[in-house]
Amino acid sequence: MPTLSSMTKEQLTAKLSRLKAIYQDYKSKNLSLDMSRGKPCTEQLELTMELADCVNARTGAVSAKGIDTRNYGFVDGIAEMKSLFGEILGLPSDNVIVGGNSSLNLMFDYVAQAYATGICGNTPWCRLPEIKFLCPVPGYDRHFAVTEHFGISMICVPMTDDGPDMDLVEELVKDPAVKGMWCVPMYSNPDGITYSDETVRRLARLHPAAKDFRILWDNAYCVHHLTDTPDTLLNLYEESKAAGNEDIAIYFTSTSKISFPGSGVAAVGGSAANIADITKRLSVQTIGYDKQNMLRHARFFKDMDAVTNHMKLHAAILRPKFDIVLTTLQNEIGDLNIADWHTPNGGYFVSVSLMEGCAKAVVNMLKEAGVALTGAGATYPYGNDPKDSNLRIAPTYPPCDELQIAMNLFCVCVQIVSIEKLLQQ
Amino acid sequence: MPTLSSMTKEQLTAKLSRLKAIYQDYKSKNLSLDMSRGKPCTEQLELTMELADCVNARTGAVSAKGIDTRNYGFVDGIAEMKSLFGEILGLPSDNVIVGGNSSLNLMFDYVAQAYATGICGNTPWCRLPEIKFLCPVPGYDRHFAVTEHFGISMICVPMTDDGPDMDLVEELVKDPAVKGMWCVPMYSNPDGITYSDETVRRLARLHPAAKDFRILWDNAYCVHHLTDTPDTLLNLYEESKAAGNEDIAIYFTSTSKISFPGSGVAAVGGSAANIADITKRLSVQTIGYDKQNMLRHARFFKDMDAVTNHMKLHAAILRPKFDIVLTTLQNEIGDLNIADWHTPNGGYFVSVSLMEGCAKAVVNMLKEAGVALTGAGATYPYGNDPKDSNLRIAPTYPPCDELQIAMNLFCVCVQIVSIEKLLQQ
Repeated sequence: MPTLSSMTKEQLTAKLSRLKAIYQDYKSKNLSLDMSRGKPCTEQLELTMELADCVNARTGAVSAKGIDTRNYGFVDGIAEMKSLFGEILGLPSDNVIVGGNSSLNLMFDYVAQAYATGICGNTPWCRLPEIKFLCPVPGYDRHFAVTEHFGISMICVPMTDDGPDMDLVEELVKDPAVKGMWCVPMYSNPDGITYSDETVRRLARLHPAAKDFRILWDNAYCVHHLTDTPDTLLNLYEESKAAGNEDIAIYFTSTSKISFPGSGVAAVGGSAANIADITKRLSVQTIGYDKQNMLRHARFFKDMDAVTNHMKLHAAILRPKFDIVLTTLQNEIGDLNIADWHTPNGGYFVSVSLMEGCAKAVVNMLKEAGVALTGAGATYPYGNDPKDSNLRIAPTYPPCDELQIAMNLFCVCVQIVSIEKLLQQ
Repeated sequence: MPTLSSMTKEQLTAKLSRLKAIYQDYKSKNLSLDMSRGKPCTEQLELTMELADCVNARTGAVSAKGIDTRNYGFVDGIAEMKSLFGEILGLPSDNVIVGGNSSLNLMFDYVAQAYATGICGNTPWCRLPEIKFLCPVPGYDRHFAVTEHFGISMICVPMTDDGPDMDLVEELVKDPAVKGMWCVPMYSNPDGITYSDETVRRLARLHPAAKDFRILWDNAYCVHHLTDTPDTLLNLYEESKAAGNEDIAIYFTSTSKISFPGSGVAAVGGSAANIADITKRLSVQTIGYDKQNMLRHARFFKDMDAVTNHMKLHAAILRPKFDIVLTTLQNEIGDLNIADWHTPNGGYFVSVSLMEGCAKAVVNMLKEAGVALTGAGATYPYGNDPKDSNLRIAPTYPPCDELQIAMNLFCVCVQIVSIEKLLQQ
C-alpha cells in the first residue's frame, strides 16, 4: 500500500470518495459503541466475585492482628493490606497507608493538603503567588483536572520512549514555583510506556529548588501486564533512599483494576516523613477507611503471587482486545504514514498520534457515527493538545465484536480526515 | 444524703478518707476499662452481619436502576441509597450525595473546599484574613479538630436545653468573618439535647452577614433513639426552604452507628445550589464512592421502616448501659449537689457537669486506676473547657459489668475531687 503522501491529488480524491461511502454505511447502522474510558469489562469483574464471601457472619471480620474491622479506628489500615500494598508498591509496609476505594481521591487529598496547609511544614501553596506542576504529555486527564482545580499552572513535558524528557525536567525544577510532577511510570496512561531505569534514577536524584516539590507517582498499572514479556520498573523508593532523597515522591496505587473499579482498595505510600505528614491530616479527616473491604481483599488475594496469578486472568481477557486494536491499526493504516502508536506490554490504553490537526475531527466523525472516544486534547493539560494529534483508545470495556467494528470505523475516519488534510495543503 | 457543701470540714475529711480507701481498692484491681469513645459494642455489630451476603456472586451487583455497582462512575451514588438517606435526612433524594464510609470525611472535605476554592463562587476562605466558626459547647471534639486544622477561629456558644443560645448566634453572625456553625441537632454530642422547634426555626431564618455562611448540620444520631418516647426534630431543610433560605445548611449523616462504624455509608445533602457546588469538586476528587457497599446497605435496610426497626435492636442493647450510667450517677452522687447531667432519649453519650475545676482531676484519677474517659476539655474548642467542668461518658462499648465498675469508680473519683475542692475553699 502506498503512503498517502505519495499519492496524487486524483488518487486521494478517489480514495476519499470510497471511504466516505463506507463511513455513511457505518453511520446508517446507528451504532452505540464506547472506547472512551479505561473501564474493566463485565467478564473482568466476574473474576473477583468470590471476594464478597471473604468477610461475613461465618468467616468473622477480625483481622490477622485481632482488629475488629467493623468498628472505628486504625487510620492507616490493617496490617495485611499494608503489607500487600507494600509489596505492590515496593515500599516497607510501615510506609503505606491503606485508603478508601479511590487512589485519585488520595491524590486529590494530597494536593489539597499541600495547597491548604502545606507539605511537611512548608508554606501552604495557597499562600504563594504561583504554583507549577510538570505534566508529562500525553498524560491522564484526571491528574490534570486535579491540578487545574487548585489553579496550579501546568507545564507540559514531552514523553519519550524512556519516559518524560529528563533533560527538560531537570531544567524546569530549578524554578522554585515548580512544586510537583505527575507520573504514571509503568504502562503510562495513555502511551503504555514504562519509564527506563535511567529515567527512574534521574528522578530519584532530582534536587528541585522547591523543598516541597513532590513527584506524584501514580503506579496505577504496576501489575497490569498484558504479555508474557512484561516491562520492569526500577524501584524509585529504593533508588531515592540510596540517594538520600526519599522524600521526593509520594506513591499511589489501587486495586481498582485488580478487583473492582468502584469498590477496590487504594493506597498511598512514601518516606517516614511524608507518611507522618499525611497521617497528621488524615487523623483529622477521618476515623479510618473501610477496613472490612481491606480484609475482604487481604483474604481473597492473600499474597503477591496470588495477585500476579489473578492479573493473568485479566490479561487473558484483555489481550484479544488489544490485539484487535493493534492488528486493525496495522492492517488498515499501518503503511499509510499517517499515524504512529506504541504497542504496550500492559496497562489500559493504546495511544495514537495522528497528523497534526486531525484528532478533533476524527473524534467528531466517530461521535456522529455513534462511537465514543476520549475527547481529543483530553490527554493534555487544559484539554489543549497543541498539535491536535493525540487520541487515546480504551479497548477494555466493549466486547470484542463491538470493538472490531469501532476500530474499523476508527481507521476509516483517520484516513478520511488525513486525506482531507492532505488535499487542503 | 446531705449535699457536700452542707457538710462540715470534719465530716468532709472523714468522708474523703473513706472514699480514698475505696479508690485504692479499685486501683489494686489493675482495671482496664474504656468509656472514652462513642463506639458501638460487638453485640451491636453482630446485628448487621447479614449485610455481607446482600451483594455477592449469587445476588449479583446490579442496582435497581441497572447500574453495575462494581464498576466506575455515578459520583452521587445509587438511587436507592440516595432515596433512603433522603428519608433519614428529610431531604429530596436529588438533594443527597451518597459518600464513602465516613461523614466526618465529608465534613472535612466540605470545609477544605470552602477553604481552598470557596463556596458557590465566593472568595476562598484561605484568601481572607480571618475565618470564624460558631461552636455550640459542649460539642464534638472531631468537629473542632477540623476547624482548628484549617486555622479557623472557634467561638463558643453555650448550649441550652433548647440547643445553642440563639440570641447569641443571631448576634455573632452579624460579623462577616463568621462563616459557619457546627450543629449536632438531635441527641447532641455530648449533651443528648435535641434542638427545639423554635431553635430550628431561628436557624432556618438566620441571615448572616457572610453570604457563604453555612450551618454544618451533623445529624449523626437522627434515628438513634433509646426510649419509646423519642425526641423529634423539626426539618431544617423544609423550614429554611419555606423561608427562602435553603442554602443556609449542609446536612450530614451516616450509617456508622446503624450498620458498621468502619464500613457504613455516609451522605451529604443540601439545596440544589449547594449540591451542584459540592458535585463540581467531587467530580475532580473521585470517580465515585463505593457503590457495592451502598447496594449492600440498600438491600439490607430496604426502607425507613426497616431502619427504624433495626434501631430498636440497637436500643435494646444500649438502654441497659445508659441505665447503669444514669442510675449510678443518681444513686451515688445524685443528692450531693456536685454534678449535673442530662437524661438523653437517644444518642451515644451522657454529659456530666462537675463543680468548676474538677474535670481534669477526675479524668486523671480514673486513668491512674485503669479507666479511660474522653479527655477533660475535649468537648470544647482547642481542648479548653474554661470551667474545667464537663466530662463525656460513652457507655456503649464496654460490657455492662465493666461499665458498672467504671461508673462506681467514676462516682468515687468525682466525690474525692469535689471534696478536695471544697476543703481548699
